[in-house]
Amino acid sequence: MKDHLQVIGFDADDTLWLNESYYQETGQKFYQLLSPYLSCEEAEKELFKTEMGNMELYGYGAKAYILSIIETALRVTENRVGANIISEIITLCKELLNKPVVLLDGIADILEQLSHSDYRVIMVTKGDLLDQERKLNKSNIAQYFHHIEIVSDKKESDYIKLLERLSITPEHFLMVGNSLKSDVLPVINIGGYGVHIPHEMTWAHEKTEMEERPDRFWKIEHISELRSILELNK
Amino acid sequence: MKDHLQVIGFDADDTLWLNESYYQETGQKFYQLLSPYLSCEEAEKELFKTEMGNMELYGYGAKAYILSIIETALRVTENRVGANIISEIITLCKELLNKPVVLLDGIADILEQLSHSDYRVIMVTKGDLLDQERKLNKSNIAQYFHHIEIVSDKKESDYIKLLERLSITPEHFLMVGNSLKSDVLPVINIGGYGVHIPHEMTWAHEKTEMEERPDRFWKIEHISELRSILELNK
Repeated sequence: MKDHLQVIGFDADDTLWLNESYYQETGQKFYQLLSPYLSCEEAEKELFKTEMGNMELYGYGAKAYILSIIETALRVTENRVGANIISEIITLCKELLNKPVVLLDGIADILEQLSHSDYRVIMVTKGDLLDQERKLNKSNIAQYFHHIEIVSDKKESDYIKLLERLSITPEHFLMVGNSLKSDVLPVINIGGYGVHIPHEMTWAHEKTEMEERPDRFWKIEHISELRSILELNK
Repeated sequence: MKDHLQVIGFDADDTLWLNESYYQETGQKFYQLLSPYLSCEEAEKELFKTEMGNMELYGYGAKAYILSIIETALRVTENRVGANIISEIITLCKELLNKPVVLLDGIADILEQLSHSDYRVIMVTKGDLLDQERKLNKSNIAQYFHHIEIVSDKKESDYIKLLERLSITPEHFLMVGNSLKSDVLPVINIGGYGVHIPHEMTWAHEKTEMEERPDRFWKIEHISELRSILELNK
């Protein structure tokens, strides 16, 4: 089975580079701004509620996140929040978009090694188009990818469309990522392969459960373990 | 020369469907909200200034526009604007994202006719990924396009990358759009062909001048004139 593999897809946020920690840091600063009105726990719960309500309309990414933060501030204070707080939120937005790109441990090594193999390596990420492009450009690893795909969602139908466009069938495709829900489950369900590499911080929206299946789904703790799965050292 | 043409690219906003008028409508409502503080003309000028300042960080699209509107409201009032006004701006944002997709006159006909020709038809649009996908899905013309490309910008380098990805050379490519700056100029500059179809409303950021060149650049007033350029009736 594994002999058929031709294309390795990598998720980006929290698989190649730090992301969720920046969002959580921004969230914490926002909860502090709201602390005269409600507790951190309540603020977090209310923000998540706003985000889920806006998901279909706003999608993923920093601009969507900040618009939901502003809406939450207005809603929970019944429009009593001061304009200076909103102004600080806009500043948080710009800071979030300007964060440095920090590669996760071992990523540069494995991509370098893959570049000498027969595998085609692609990046499949969801989120804001411009923001993801900017992160890729800052990352210094863009040259390792044969193809970059920035999608609005990662459902089965999104992967089917992507593989059709690349003229490959699912049994030739393995996806590596930190989200079971977005990176592994949909790919397994259409007949592909998945490697789950959990990140210490995973957004509540991405959490799901799934049993390991040694024939098409592996869970690893460090990206270097991908070598033995792909038999890169043989 | 024209005999070489194989691929016809269409811009989307204000080429296939109404867009700028929705933004201007949203802008007008925002200027009204700010009218206790400054005139419509001043508000428009200040918003444009904010948008240009944020362009590199936020890019194009409705979420970027609304974040710039909020920032403008805060800046010009020196944070004196009320939270209820910010709340109304959030509502304007959701209304803008939920606008119906109205095809421009003659678009469905020309796409239908092109679908029976040998030309491959693609859509090349910049803006927010999810928003542009939503508009395409609402438009009922998605089936006419062999490929949809949503890009973060439309500079020469963006067109070069796109054509490489589609394995075509510029001399086989003609782009149709309402923006000389984004749809025609960069394509001509890399050796392709362009058709400019001005729309009554064009965003100030997209305005530029260019002389017609009957060998590779045509200006038309109605999309039906594309028929004679492409010799669709022969």
